[in-house]
Amino acid sequence: MGTRLGALVERLGGQLVGDANLEVTGIAPLTDAGVSHISFLSNSKLRAQAAQSKAAALIVSAADDAFIAAGYSGARIVVPNPYVYFARAAQYFASLTAIVPAAGVHATAVVAETAQVAASAHIGPRVVIEDGAVIEDGAVIGAGCFIGREAVIGAETQLFANVTFHAYCQIGKRGIIHSGAVIGTDGFGFANEGGVYIKIPQTGRVMIGDDVDIGANTTIDRGALADTIIEDGVKLDNQIQIGHNCHIGAHTAMAGCVGVAGSAKIGKYCTFGGAAMVLGHLTIVDKVHVGSGSMVSRSILEPGQYTGFYPLAKNADWEKSAVIVRNLSAMRDKIRALEKIIKTKSEEDES
Amino acid sequence: MGTRLGALVERLGGQLVGDANLEVTGIAPLTDAGVSHISFLSNSKLRAQAAQSKAAALIVSAADDAFIAAGYSGARIVVPNPYVYFARAAQYFASLTAIVPAAGVHATAVVAETAQVAASAHIGPRVVIEDGAVIEDGAVIGAGCFIGREAVIGAETQLFANVTFHAYCQIGKRGIIHSGAVIGTDGFGFANEGGVYIKIPQTGRVMIGDDVDIGANTTIDRGALADTIIEDGVKLDNQIQIGHNCHIGAHTAMAGCVGVAGSAKIGKYCTFGGAAMVLGHLTIVDKVHVGSGSMVSRSILEPGQYTGFYPLAKNADWEKSAVIVRNLSAMRDKIRALEKIIKTKSEEDES
Amino acid sequence: MGTRLGALVERLGGQLVGDANLEVTGIAPLTDAGVSHISFLSNSKLRAQAAQSKAAALIVSAADDAFIAAGYSGARIVVPNPYVYFARAAQYFASLTAIVPAAGVHATAVVAETAQVAASAHIGPRVVIEDGAVIEDGAVIGAGCFIGREAVIGAETQLFANVTFHAYCQIGKRGIIHSGAVIGTDGFGFANEGGVYIKIPQTGRVMIGDDVDIGANTTIDRGALADTIIEDGVKLDNQIQIGHNCHIGAHTAMAGCVGVAGSAKIGKYCTFGGAAMVLGHLTIVDKVHVGSGSMVSRSILEPGQYTGFYPLAKNADWEKSAVIVRNLSAMRDKIRALEKIIKTKSEEDES
Repeated sequence: MGTRLGALVERLGGQLVGDANLEVTGIAPLTDAGVSHISFLSNSKLRAQAAQSKAAALIVSAADDAFIAAGYSGARIVVPNPYVYFARAAQYFASLTAIVPAAGVHATAVVAETAQVAASAHIGPRVVIEDGAVIEDGAVIGAGCFIGREAVIGAETQLFANVTFHAYCQIGKRGIIHSGAVIGTDGFGFANEGGVYIKIPQTGRVMIGDDVDIGANTTIDRGALADTIIEDGVKLDNQIQIGHNCHIGAHTAMAGCVGVAGSAKIGKYCTFGGAAMVLGHLTIVDKVHVGSGSMVSRSILEPGQYTGFYPLAKNADWEKSAVIVRNLSAMRDKIRALEKIIKTKSEEDES
Repeated sequence: MGTRLGALVERLGGQLVGDANLEVTGIAPLTDAGVSHISFLSNSKLRAQAAQSKAAALIVSAADDAFIAAGYSGARIVVPNPYVYFARAAQYFASLTAIVPAAGVHATAVVAETAQVAASAHIGPRVVIEDGAVIEDGAVIGAGCFIGREAVIGAETQLFANVTFHAYCQIGKRGIIHSGAVIGTDGFGFANEGGVYIKIPQTGRVMIGDDVDIGANTTIDRGALADTIIEDGVKLDNQIQIGHNCHIGAHTAMAGCVGVAGSAKIGKYCTFGGAAMVLGHLTIVDKVHVGSGSMVSRSILEPGQYTGFYPLAKNADWEKSAVIVRNLSAMRDKIRALEKIIKTKSEEDES
Repeated sequence: MGTRLGALVERLGGQLVGDANLEVTGIAPLTDAGVSHISFLSNSKLRAQAAQSKAAALIVSAADDAFIAAGYSGARIVVPNPYVYFARAAQYFASLTAIVPAAGVHATAVVAETAQVAASAHIGPRVVIEDGAVIEDGAVIGAGCFIGREAVIGAETQLFANVTFHAYCQIGKRGIIHSGAVIGTDGFGFANEGGVYIKIPQTGRVMIGDDVDIGANTTIDRGALADTIIEDGVKLDNQIQIGHNCHIGAHTAMAGCVGVAGSAKIGKYCTFGGAAMVLGHLTIVDKVHVGSGSMVSRSILEPGQYTGFYPLAKNADWEKSAVIVRNLSAMRDKIRALEKIIKTKSEEDES
């Protein structure tokens, strides 16, 4: 199964240089592509590699095309952003072989009578849907998912197997929630009375916008009194923890293992590298980029790239530097003492 | 649905200044509270905000009451610890609307004949309970939970949907385990024979006390030979990992993403910030507080607040400081050389 | 239930000094062992403790045996590697009481007609197995597991309750996957178009070798175009995240909470301490050992032990050192200034 280049360009745009009737069966990286594949050049450093690719066709920018056109004998699809075009082409090829879950409710699913399930939705085996929950058109609920009371799953949103989506929470349209994710668990809220913790009921919700992806085993706490908010287009990788009452702005992306403590307010178009951590009650403005393994312990009020992790070293070298880091104030004191001695000496010399 | 202030004070204590017949419907933060809400002042910095709150009544300490009484026209409930009172009041309001799962075993649950399930317990859809397990009075086992052989779930303990609770492990009374948590998985124990790992069977249990809360997707390993112990009142947030044979003292709390390696012994009344890590076989005494993102690599034998994470900076600044950190011993050597030169010079000058 | 020492040595090897007819019922640590237990001495520092153990028999190296033989009155099993022998003996004792799940498919399992399930395999309650999946001889699929389309579970591999194993992925023989693990979730791959993320379909698989253990709530992403590879004998603890297209070499072990970003290539016989992190697209050669809480931000091309975490300190001390770390380049400038002054002064003195 595949497509003609002409049909692909008709669907996705781009300027085709080459035979529109050429048949391609899939998409592959430059070095792996065979004669029935298309490939893409999104990094100009790989121009030489691209020119030698066996791919039937290359997705390429105009700037790169000028360089490879002479050496490369296949067809080219010239586009403004080859990586984005690759993504769309890959989506198209994937759609040719995708097995779309059939509409309907599996016989082993347990669906409350008061739940509203669209006729076009797919409810997999062993799913549990509680009272008053709403599953909109074309939504796919994978095997073993739990949907709590009055929760809402938006149109065309897909939950993979074994997702837990708690009562009253909502997700919009075209979202994806991967297996093992837990949405709407209680936030970590206690009052301390003489050392003993008294639980504060968590009565807010998790409200998730459209086009949001949530990774495997990621957890998002429901709000304490108000709601936890995830805006449109947010992309969360696996094993992320979002505390209660957080607000994550649209089109912000977080890599795996990130943790965000409660009531943090994060702007739009931010990125967080893997295992970055954000303390509670902070504000991070739009377009902030936090590096992997970095701890955000104060608000960030200026866009930009921020980092903070201890550099790796051979263990013996790290041990030396770690001892000095522990005693940095002693080092500073020594420098101050030296400065003083030299200053005194200079004054003596001058007098 | 709500309550009269008089009824609330009768139930929870506190000194009411104002109309005992005033009806309130819920609890809300100072700024969000409307005329049918009560609110609370637990942070004296917010006195001015409190005085202007629209809330029908305020929970307040005697010290703060002296300041706001003049400006605030609503009723006040004067108590020793407003935040604790808020927690209890919030529990009360939550109880008014809570939907208590009905006693009984859902038709789709798979319960072994030799399991003992109290008549007052709730066993949700798709639950699996193996041979000899015990579910005590009033326990709630959410949809899709797995309870292994001879495990014990104490009275009034609640497992949310999709918890895995393995064989022989026990949890006491009034606990909460959130979705996706896994209790009693094998510890990470191997003997290495020429590079190849030989598994050491993990035959201990996880023994959990009363009033313990365990967060979503948190994992607690069973002991290797002896047991892993979680004492009364411990509160664990989401995505925490507790290794085999750990012992966590009563009323210790850990925020999300904390990791504790095997055989660590942690005292009572400790707190761990998010993503703090504890190496194996360490001892941490009572009342130790470890900051977020901090690595505990040695035992802590003195109570207090401990921290250790690299401070965040603009990326360019971090790169500069990281290079120097890597070469701190060179910097120390330079300082020593300077000290030596100056010392020599001083001696020359004196001679 | 137990075994005679003679039978044990016949099965596992080792030189028995003592009564072959002595019956032992289990294995225990030196200090806990009673008169019906065997114990082991794998750390020479514990020789004195071993000599006083109540154990009926001790597993011991020849070197240690020379020291304890005089003081210890029980039997000894002298072996080259007591810890490995302990592991094998513990496996043997565990096998005596192990409850082996019966072959067959539970009535509540949902198994596709086109799936191939070996007659000797155990399929627990509530399991879902999709079209074309293969469950080989003696495999054990715990309650509530999900096995996707055309996935392969190798012979004698055990999945504990509530594992999610996605379509087309494969695991070899004698593996263990613990509860809550998710294998073959989509990798985190997007193209960014003007701030908005376009999903790149993840069409690769996860291919796992023989004798691989995967911990509770660990997640392994499927490849984007090519596959994610986990070689034979790899041991992964709980809550580990492995990104798409990673390649992990044989007999590498990772402790809990480790994260590996996409396309990292890790060698054989490596170890990673808890919460270590590896950035994407890096290469780590064989026999590299990364300490807990360390961030690997560049390729490691030389075997050895590497570390990088900020040392813990009392909070007040950390605050001092953190301020200086932030301003290390200012400190370096001061030292340079001092060096210059002294150099100038020396030149003046000499002139």
